[in-house]
Amino acid sequence: MKTQNIPKATIKRLAVYIQVLTGLKRDGVEVVSSEKLARACSVNPSQIRKDLAYFGEFGVRGVGYYVHELIASIKHSLGVDRVWGCALVGVGNLGRALLRHKEFALRGFSIRAAFDCDPYKIGEIVSGLEVVCTRQLKSRVDELGLEIGIISTPPERAQRAANYLVEGGLKGIVNFAQARIQVPKEITVEYVDFTHHFYSVAFNVSSSD
Amino acid sequence: MKTQNIPKATIKRLAVYIQVLTGLKRDGVEVVSSEKLARACSVNPSQIRKDLAYFGEFGVRGVGYYVHELIASIKHSLGVDRVWGCALVGVGNLGRALLRHKEFALRGFSIRAAFDCDPYKIGEIVSGLEVVCTRQLKSRVDELGLEIGIISTPPERAQRAANYLVEGGLKGIVNFAQARIQVPKEITVEYVDFTHHFYSVAFNVSSSD
Repeated sequence: MKTQNIPKATIKRLAVYIQVLTGLKRDGVEVVSSEKLARACSVNPSQIRKDLAYFGEFGVRGVGYYVHELIASIKHSLGVDRVWGCALVGVGNLGRALLRHKEFALRGFSIRAAFDCDPYKIGEIVSGLEVVCTRQLKSRVDELGLEIGIISTPPERAQRAANYLVEGGLKGIVNFAQARIQVPKEITVEYVDFTHHFYSVAFNVSSSD
Repeated sequence: MKTQNIPKATIKRLAVYIQVLTGLKRDGVEVVSSEKLARACSVNPSQIRKDLAYFGEFGVRGVGYYVHELIASIKHSLGVDRVWGCALVGVGNLGRALLRHKEFALRGFSIRAAFDCDPYKIGEIVSGLEVVCTRQLKSRVDELGLEIGIISTPPERAQRAANYLVEGGLKGIVNFAQARIQVPKEITVEYVDFTHHFYSVAFNVSSSD
């Protein structure tokens, strides 16, 4: 079932489909037509069919998609139908918000450890986790099943955080810090940057004036 | 100078260029070759030239780009060489982190008002701003120069927040809530969702196992 080389844009849309489908499920909807799903996701129905075709056949002609089943299938295809153990490095404002953000656990990403090298933060409990010195990271990886690292440090400390995660043997990093990082090429890195969304809104608003 | 219909992917890359160039400037670099800039941004040099070509001619043959000048030019082209007044709705964990996040102001997005309808939050001071009832939003727009709305509510309250922003006359919305919103088509909406970055990392890590 697992298909390699799925375009990033498709994965992004699949995340939107899961978000919209989860909303429908919350509202008690059991079946959704492809037109209605497409409208709610701001794409056209053929795009949804194309994206889902990477993973197999979905939907029932004349009926649509079974909401619960489609969520499960997309999650299975993406490998997110299991819980991933995550380690967060950088317990500043953003780090604290991420530790307290309920969505991650709901989506299968369980933050099990919080690291920071600031002696004033070590020992503090944030959202049920004790902040531990980043030098201890490697020794916690197996015990806690840490697989994905989250960097939420200031920009100038992002590379050091990345080094600790790589030494710890983590294979994937989601980087919220405003800095590029260098890691061995077998490590997957995703950069999260809110700014371009603001730029995009600002650009569109000034263009339409 | 202002060009309409710049692809979203280009705006996203321009944000990366600004991020990388700002890092270079912080490190005291004054001139950067297109190859070095491209490598730091994880794109190829021809992509940078193509993206910049939307706005005019940049770079000096045999020299490269003047860092300070290029940052200023990209910002001017995107309409982010001025300060945008922003209003945040939803002072939960994420909202607080956004209010305290220094990057926004550095990038020209000044959060000038924080709204929440929770009576326990109204009156609280977060990052120097007093939390005000969302019903007051419209009456603050002109006085504070609010132009862009930020939604950081729980998913089930996102639509109501959007309604207040639209009634207030704001023309652009950056939505961090995990829910789609309906707004008149002249309003620009950008959805911020971290989850697809996690999905993408999880998918790549499981594929490479």
